[in-house]
Formats: sequence, structure tokens, C-alpha cells
Amino acid sequence: MSEPLHLPADPGQYGYTFGGREAVASVKPGDTVTLRTLDCFGGKVRSVDDLPSQVCEFPYLNPVTGPLYVEGAQPGDTLAVHVVSLTPASPVGISSTFPHFGALTSTGYTRTLQAPLEERVWLYDIDLAAGTVRYQARRSDFTVDLPLAPMLGTVGVAPAANEVRQTIVPDVHGGNLDTPLLGPGATLYLGVNVPGALLALGDGHARQGDGEVCGVAVEVAMDVTIRVDVISGVPTGTPRLETDSELVSLGAARPLEDAFRISQDDLVRHVAELTGLDLLDAYQLVSQTTSARAGNVVDPQYVMSAGIDKRYLPGVTAYRGIHERLRNG
Amino acid sequence: MSEPLHLPADPGQYGYTFGGREAVASVKPGDTVTLRTLDCFGGKVRSVDDLPSQVCEFPYLNPVTGPLYVEGAQPGDTLAVHVVSLTPASPVGISSTFPHFGALTSTGYTRTLQAPLEERVWLYDIDLAAGTVRYQARRSDFTVDLPLAPMLGTVGVAPAANEVRQTIVPDVHGGNLDTPLLGPGATLYLGVNVPGALLALGDGHARQGDGEVCGVAVEVAMDVTIRVDVISGVPTGTPRLETDSELVSLGAARPLEDAFRISQDDLVRHVAELTGLDLLDAYQLVSQTTSARAGNVVDPQYVMSAGIDKRYLPGVTAYRGIHERLRNG
Amino acid sequence: MSEPLHLPADPGQYGYTFGGREAVASVKPGDTVTLRTLDCFGGKVRSVDDLPSQVCEFPYLNPVTGPLYVEGAQPGDTLAVHVVSLTPASPVGISSTFPHFGALTSTGYTRTLQAPLEERVWLYDIDLAAGTVRYQARRSDFTVDLPLAPMLGTVGVAPAANEVRQTIVPDVHGGNLDTPLLGPGATLYLGVNVPGALLALGDGHARQGDGEVCGVAVEVAMDVTIRVDVISGVPTGTPRLETDSELVSLGAARPLEDAFRISQDDLVRHVAELTGLDLLDAYQLVSQTTSARAGNVVDPQYVMSAGIDKRYLPGVTAYRGIHERLRNG
Amino acid sequence: MSEPLHLPADPGQYGYTFGGREAVASVKPGDTVTLRTLDCFGGKVRSVDDLPSQVCEFPYLNPVTGPLYVEGAQPGDTLAVHVVSLTPASPVGISSTFPHFGALTSTGYTRTLQAPLEERVWLYDIDLAAGTVRYQARRSDFTVDLPLAPMLGTVGVAPAANEVRQTIVPDVHGGNLDTPLLGPGATLYLGVNVPGALLALGDGHARQGDGEVCGVAVEVAMDVTIRVDVISGVPTGTPRLETDSELVSLGAARPLEDAFRISQDDLVRHVAELTGLDLLDAYQLVSQTTSARAGNVVDPQYVMSAGIDKRYLPGVTAYRGIHERLRNG
Repeated sequence: MSEPLHLPADPGQYGYTFGGREAVASVKPGDTVTLRTLDCFGGKVRSVDDLPSQVCEFPYLNPVTGPLYVEGAQPGDTLAVHVVSLTPASPVGISSTFPHFGALTSTGYTRTLQAPLEERVWLYDIDLAAGTVRYQARRSDFTVDLPLAPMLGTVGVAPAANEVRQTIVPDVHGGNLDTPLLGPGATLYLGVNVPGALLALGDGHARQGDGEVCGVAVEVAMDVTIRVDVISGVPTGTPRLETDSELVSLGAARPLEDAFRISQDDLVRHVAELTGLDLLDAYQLVSQTTSARAGNVVDPQYVMSAGIDKRYLPGVTAYRGIHERLRNG
Repeated sequence: MSEPLHLPADPGQYGYTFGGREAVASVKPGDTVTLRTLDCFGGKVRSVDDLPSQVCEFPYLNPVTGPLYVEGAQPGDTLAVHVVSLTPASPVGISSTFPHFGALTSTGYTRTLQAPLEERVWLYDIDLAAGTVRYQARRSDFTVDLPLAPMLGTVGVAPAANEVRQTIVPDVHGGNLDTPLLGPGATLYLGVNVPGALLALGDGHARQGDGEVCGVAVEVAMDVTIRVDVISGVPTGTPRLETDSELVSLGAARPLEDAFRISQDDLVRHVAELTGLDLLDAYQLVSQTTSARAGNVVDPQYVMSAGIDKRYLPGVTAYRGIHERLRNG
Repeated sequence: MSEPLHLPADPGQYGYTFGGREAVASVKPGDTVTLRTLDCFGGKVRSVDDLPSQVCEFPYLNPVTGPLYVEGAQPGDTLAVHVVSLTPASPVGISSTFPHFGALTSTGYTRTLQAPLEERVWLYDIDLAAGTVRYQARRSDFTVDLPLAPMLGTVGVAPAANEVRQTIVPDVHGGNLDTPLLGPGATLYLGVNVPGALLALGDGHARQGDGEVCGVAVEVAMDVTIRVDVISGVPTGTPRLETDSELVSLGAARPLEDAFRISQDDLVRHVAELTGLDLLDAYQLVSQTTSARAGNVVDPQYVMSAGIDKRYLPGVTAYRGIHERLRNG
Repeated sequence: MSEPLHLPADPGQYGYTFGGREAVASVKPGDTVTLRTLDCFGGKVRSVDDLPSQVCEFPYLNPVTGPLYVEGAQPGDTLAVHVVSLTPASPVGISSTFPHFGALTSTGYTRTLQAPLEERVWLYDIDLAAGTVRYQARRSDFTVDLPLAPMLGTVGVAPAANEVRQTIVPDVHGGNLDTPLLGPGATLYLGVNVPGALLALGDGHARQGDGEVCGVAVEVAMDVTIRVDVISGVPTGTPRLETDSELVSLGAARPLEDAFRISQDDLVRHVAELTGLDLLDAYQLVSQTTSARAGNVVDPQYVMSAGIDKRYLPGVTAYRGIHERLRNG
């Protein structure tokens, strides 16, 4: 293992698209990389009076650090991104409502003639030692400490067929997946579409509920350590994820049924491939064991996860055992 | 507490609708009831050669035991149904695919011109002592033991406004909710629409994955012990559920977004009512803490659950503490 | 042909469900029936100050006249209902917004935390001689005459399997279809589920745009003349409709894709059956010729229509030519 | 008016994205342009034996001619594209099914485990003099002449925020709108996102049913004459279209409800702006008059149109009367 690459928190390191941008650095398979990601507001919301719609410039939200050129990664390969650690880089996490953004409001897609919800900002004190983030109501004295559960909202590569997508969009290239499963110890698998893959990441969350219902998690700049690798000759369609206990497929689509269907279909096909079960036998096994959770239900495409406990797949190893190797450094 | 009511496994005790049927027995608030439920096939699938489309008479599936007249229950009240215990009444659980039913096939709603998937039956050996159900592939030697995790798929009351609904449909009256959360130790809350509520239940599952993806869980006749009570003057809109650790709202609708929205909206409003938080503050708290899981994604209406850990609501008691009282007998 | 049956405008003739009610009269195949239908508000909205949420008792809206027992109609048959004429029975049509009802507002299904739209009533002067209804803005002097285009919003039979559904719901039994195609000259085909079919109808509209976007058409009590007949031994799945120029299939479902899919799938299968084309050839022909319009996008289930010009099906006769016979009396 | 620009049918003139490509020519506001568009297969399907999945290279379908740099067009302006004439450039139109593409099949989004439909190609003889295209069944002798009704499936500009989208995707930048309304005599309005707008177009259809149900219209290379203009300082959100008789808003989204909502919401707001009606009065007027038709229900995003007859908007002129001027040359 070479020395970790440290990526400075330099404006040139950030962008608002997957695709359409030059690599800011190059890494080798197996490399450990440490970097700083900005929060989804680009650091512009600093108090409860900084309303995002006033201090941010739409649609330039959700900056991602990178892209990184991963040496040797070729179209048709799979990029493995193991999250080694995530440490909030600020003592305060931020959440908010936005006008016409979120799951319990009309939006630019689900349009209605109603007035938007109030735009309101919440600040969360983060206590790294205690492992908590503190929710504080804005209209009463209610406070409660919630577990710190850091995760990355947005990790992706350059899309296929020369497309360039805003970072807010999750799709087969990754992007704004917003699943609480993507925390320390998880390995994300993404299909490579262009030489070098062009990995970028950001949108750290100190914690997030399933669905990211109000549209905004507990957002925070993050010190990130990842380890990357390439599985040559093994393609990946929709993003997948592995933890010590679970194999997970992620479906990104609208409507939510389709995100669900993609995730479950992919898990069935993955289980069939790994176990040798025929497709219907795999369908049956998955049906009795899968965990189906909402990732986000707020972005231009939604995300559902389909997970299976690896104990129900005895003797099976996914992606040549790379998760095990990456987690052990 | 009176002696438990034992309901015999008599054909007269079963039906295929919520509403439109006379009560088969009467119970008092606080009563413990033991009863037997049939499996969703009405016991007609006994081997892998009994294809449901051949041995069952559509749409007469999913029989429910009852209805029970709960004394004193009035429109505008809430019925609490605490699941004390669930014991499979057969050593073998059954699952299957159906033609054009399930999440990964076209259906009578999501119609396509494609041929249906093969109809196939799987049998699961249930080992009560070991607490396992054994998956056995049909086209290979693969077997694996899965944890026994019994639950009730279908619990409901008579609908409002004189409607009569097939038991396969989940809606605000309960019905085929198909959430793995509805197992021993859970208390289900349903709004009462008619005098006596007319509670009926069935569709026991030895276990089920989120979403009931292939359309059929590990189905089994069940020996059921429940305790029922009435919360007078407290209405309930969409079904809710409480366990020792969680408060949960259940949304039943199509499309899946709407099931999700209903569950999350109801949880936000419930949390606001219990904590005194204003609606936006409750929205924020729920957004960072909610668990959003698929119940079923196969029935005429889908179900999503929205749960919050009760630790995040310190000092709060839902429904006058009835869950605590019912679980303690 | 016997003398037309005249059904008096008696309270006993109206109800709020399909199924669950006794027939109010009996008719023979071939009979002409004249009857009066109430408007969807049951006549309770009489001025712009009568807000529906205040003067109506929810959910008792959309009364239907009937049911009529059609002699000889048996499960597995098709009921043909030909609309001979529709004459508004009031000089004033009524429309409104409702809180949380309509396509451009959040609803009880598509829930948000936003405040509802204002509830507002509009009155339309109907000029039978000129064939117009007059739109008059409530907040300005803008007025415009629109063509009178009367139609029936709700026509249905008793559902299968003992279900009882509110009249507001469209489904395979018909119900609140809300398609502008169902006007004078159209023949509606509905599958019969119970002996006598138990036909009921109401919800007359002086006119309606596609989708019934605000949730309420130009509602008016209606003098209705229909002619009914039975096509023995010919089942109908989803409702169909025939005019002098078009064959139409109606899909009722959520989400709107599924309503669309049902209507198009049914039209493809109908065209295949009528022409002898194989399924893919019929799919191709329909793809290049179908008209796909929104019926309603506001009810508990939505409706899409799929129509094909009968000129593209030379020599073809649907349902044994009954439309032709009924229109010619 | 200057001489029409003639764009040669040169490979350099075609591409597969909106955005990400350099202009191939420059035009002035008011210019008439004649150009040739390729069919959606890039001319590679020439007989019923040329299966698209074998002769085409996915996802490189739906080539568009251009982009054209429109002088003076600036972000915040609206580009008006008037279709003067469309003449099929080949005597044969082509349609087909694709594996897992279309409205009545599972797709890459609406995934199922079922086998795909058969891939089949149909050829349509085009008779320009008679104004017909001839449908010929592949598995029987059935033939029928359908009216020639040429339209452009795909017209768009470069997206905002540096995005690059495949031509198959319709969105606020236009793209694969697939509405039969976009034929000769129609003026399409698109918001300008980059200097010069970068207009490109293609995907000519000899005719198409609403929804483009099988996924493929009667595809044909087309000789196109358009006239372009710029409405300075007038932004356009979602695409709009004007004919001599109708004002139309186009919504592109998934699910279909959202495409419907976008189109209707935009039409309501447009009508309010043009007439001075308040929003609810405009909602009411649109509700009783709108025509809501499916554009496509097969692409990565669906399209619905919302149209209003201009007779119901007396004295109103949209976009400074540019449609009238462009149609009169």
C-alpha cells in the first residue's frame, strides 16, 4: 500500500456534475485516499437565518470532490469504493426545508398550486466524543440527542454515452444515492463507463432517516478516508453495496415502485449468480429474506435498497472477496 | 381478565371480506382471544404439485377468522389489537409464485403482453424448537435455515361508509398489511368505523421479507393469541402499530410514493401531537430518525411503514399507554 | 320495444355505493329507461356561498340512481348501456374546488404538510337553446361561453366477490369513470358480476375537461334516457365504450401508468380478437393509431381511455353489432 | 427573410446528445432552415430482418441534426421553432418492438423476471400523393391504410447547468417529446439555457398514436423545414407548443401523474398570465376545457400534453404573437 493521497480542500477540487469535468488527481487500485468534502450547501448556510434559497445559487448544490482518475479502470470493469472512516469536519450539522423540495411537499415534479412550506433551518451540535448529534426544535424547547451515524450521500462516476448529470441525481452511475447504508465499513460497487472511472464524492451526512423525508439530512463537511479498487472484467449495472453482514442492491428511478423493482430484480439476479440457484428459486429466497428500505424519496430520482443477510448465502463470495480485502486494508 | 375466548376452526368462522359479514363471536375490551387462522390458500395447497391457480378458487383467497364484535367499540374510537403469541399450526409452510401476481412480474394492474412467470410451489419445514424455517430450492440442492419470525399478514375491521372490501386489499381499515412488524409483542391500532369494530384476522406468515416480493410469504395456519382493547373517543386514521421500541405508521395506497407519503405524514403528525412540536419541527425530527420499509409491494394497494425509535421521544406515551398494559396482560 | 320506464326522482332511488343495495326497479333487455340523476353534491350546493365541505356530508357524495335489475343478465355476460340523451335538469351547473381533492393539490393519498387550496364555488349558466355553459370568473369580470357537452360521470354495476364500493371509485365494475366520451350516442360495456347486473348511474356533467383536473366538472342534475341490453355469454373485463366512430377501452387504476397500461392492453387484445391479428401485430396497429386521453386524475383510482378509429378496423363488428342496434332504437 | 439555410445530410451534422456538442451551423432569428433528419435507427433498419438490437449500437439511437447556434438567443429567452413542413425522405417507414422497451412490456426501469416480447419489424409503404402509410401485419394478410400525419419526435436545446442528456430523454430542454401535436403548423417554445440555444432535431415519424405504445412510431428520415425565432427576455419553463387552434403545455417526467401535473399546472399558470385570471379561476377554466393526451409513455421520462382551445381565451395573444408571424412566413 502506498501512502494515502491527501486531497486539499481547494475550490478546484469541487464540482456540480458527474461527467464533463477533468480529473483532479490520479489514484491506483488499492490506494487509500483522504479528502475533505463540503456540505451540500457548499458551506454557505451558517446560521438559522441563512435560508438556502437566499444564500445558495440554484442549482449549484451538492458539490462533489473529485473526480479521481483510477488507474487501470476501464469500461466494463467495476469500481469498488470502501469507506474506511467518516469524521464530521465541523461541530455543527445543518438541516433545512426548501421551498418545493422534500417528500411531504409538492415539488417541481409533483406540482400543485399550493403555497410552499416555510423554509426553516435547524442546527445540530455534533459531539464526536459522545457520538451524538443534538436535535433542537425551532419553535419549542424540545431537544434530544440522536446517535451520530455518518454516511456519504453522493458517490458516483462519469455516466455512459457522454452524458453529464447534476450531482443531485442518482442513477446507474451512482450519484445522490442517499442511503444510510453507505457509512464506514461499507463497500460501494459502481460500473465503470469511461477510462479511469472518474470517481467523485460528497454530501456527507452526520445522520439521516430513511427517505431523507424533508429533503435534507444533517449535512456537514466531512473528513473522508476511502480505499478504492478495480474488479477487472466484471461489469456492474445498478449500484451495489456490501457490508460485513449484508449484500445490497440499489435501485434509482421514479416512480418509487421502479426503484424498488430495480433493487429487488438486481438482488435476485445477483443471488442467482452467486449461488447457482435458478431465477425463480432465487426470487423465492430473496422474497423471504430481503430488507427493503427507502434511500431518498426526494431527489429527481428516488432510491430503494434491497439487502440480504450474508448468513443466508453460506459459502458465497461476491466480487472476488474484495470487500473483505479492502476492509482489512 | 376473563377466560380467553377460544374460537374453533369451524368453516363458519372464516370469510373473504372486511365488512358485509355478521360477527361470529363477541369479546370484551381487555379480553384475551385464542383462535386458529387458515393459511392464505385456505389449506388447499399441500404439495409442490398443488398449483394455487388450479386448486384454489379465485378470488377467494386469504380467509380471515372472524369478525369479532368488540363490546363498546364505537365509530370514532380506536381498536387496539395486541399480538400475544403466534405459533404455526402446521409443520410445513408454503410459498409460491402465481401467474401475474408479485412485484417482479407484470400483473392485472401493471399489464404487459408478456407470458407469465412459471407457477411454482415451495415447501418450508418449520422447526419450532430450533426456531427455523428451511428454504429448499426446487431446481437444485441448495437449502438454508432461516429464522422463524411469525407475523399476521391480514388484520382489519369493517370499513366505513358501508364499503365491503376483499381481504386481499389493505387500506385505512387495515386488511392485508403484510408488514413483518406485526408479530408477537406488537400492538396494532385501527380506527373503528361501525359499532363493535368487527375485527377479523388471518394470513399468518412463518416469515416474510420486506415487500413480500414474489407475492407470497411462508404461509401457514397459525394458532393466534391476541388481546383487544378500545381507546374511547380517540380516532385513528391510517393504521398504526407500536412495539416496545418503536412507534409506527402504516400507509396503504398506490403508487408506492403515496403509501410512503401517508406513512411519513401520519408519523409526523403523530409525533407533533405527542411532543407538542410544531409540524415543521416534527417533520425535521422524523426526517432524521425514521425507518421506512416496504410492507407489501404486490397487493391491490401497497404498504409502507414509517417507524421512529421511542427513545427519541422521551417521556411520551401513545394511546394512553395501552401498549404497555396489553403486553403486561 | 316496450314503453320507456320512467324512474321518479324519489330519495329511495339514490345511493352511495355499487353493490350492497336492493334493486329499485327491473328492466328488460332492449328497454328504454328515462330517469333523473342528482348532481354530485346531491343538490346541496346552490350558491357560491355553499361550500361543499360545509353543506355536504362526507363521504356521501356522488349519489347514483338505481340500481336497476336487468332481467336475464348473468355473471359472465356483458351489459350494454346506450346513452340516448342527456338534458341538464337545472339551468345552472356547479363546480368547485375541495380541500385536498383534485389533480393540482395534495390529497388524502398524495399527502403533504401544505395548507389546502381555497375552497371556491363557480356557477355556470346553461343555455340549452344555444348549447352553451357560461364560465364566469370569481375574482374578475372574465366570462366565456363553452360548448354544452353533457356526459355521465358515474355508471356502474355491482362488483364481484361481494364487494361494495363507494360511488366515487372507478374500477372494473365501472363507477366514477369520468370520461368525456360517455355522452349521448355512446354505448358503455360492463361485465356482469351478479344476477341482474344492478346498474346504477349519476354524476351528470354539463361538460368536463380531460382529467377533471380540479376534481369537479360542471355538475348538474340530469334527465337521462338510456337503452340497456345484455350480450349473453360474452364477458367483459375492464369497461369498454363504443361510439359511431371509435372503439374505446377504459383503464381504472393507480398510478396513471397502470390506468394507461390497462386501457392499451385491453384495446390491443380487443383488436386482436376482432381482426384475427396476432398479439404483436395488434400491438403495432394500436401503437400507431390509439388516442390516449385522461378520464379523471383525481379519484381514488384514475381513468385513461384508449380509443381506435373504427375506420382502421374495416369489416369489424364488436359485441355482435349491439351498438348499431341500440343507437337505432 | 434571408435565403433558407440548407443543412446537408452529412455525418458531422448528427449526434446523440443535447448539450456537449459544438454548433454545426449558425442561423438568425426569423431564418427558415431546411434540413434532413435521419430516422431513429440511423438508417440501419432496412428490412424486416434487420432487428434493431442487432444492427444498431445501443444506446446510440435517435440521432438529432444540429445543433444550430441561433444568433442572439440568451439564457432567459425563449426559442420559437415553427414547423413549416415535414416530408418523408423515404418511401418506407419502419416500426418495431424492442426487447424490454415500450409501454406494454417490462423495461429496464419497470423490471420483471419475465422473458422479453419478440422483437419484430414492420415496414409501412408511404404514399405521399395519397397521404397514407400502409400497415401490413406480419403474421396475417391484414392491411389497412392510415393517414400520413408527419411529426418530429425529438426537438431540443442544450440543457442548463452544463448537463448533457441523451436524445432519448425528454425534459425541460425538450428532447424526445414524442407528441403527435408537433407537426406542420405547430410552433414549439423552449427555454434557452446557453448562448445560441443550440437547437437540434430529429426522430421524424410518418405517424404515431398517443403514447407511442410499442415504443416505436412509423419512423422515417424526414425533409424538414422550420423557421426559428427568439423571444427576448421571456423565459419558458416546461416546453410549450402553439397551433392555430390550441395553446399546449408539455410535461416530461416520471411517473405519468407528474408529467400530467406539470403540463396542467403550466397551462393553468400560462392561462392566468395571459388572461389576468387569478390562479384558482384559471384552474377552474382549464379544468373544464383541457385536452390531456399521452405523448410518450415509453421513454426514460414520459410526456403528457395539456391543451386549451384558443377560442376559450378571446383576445389573448401568447408570446407576443410570434406563432402568427412565423406561420405567415
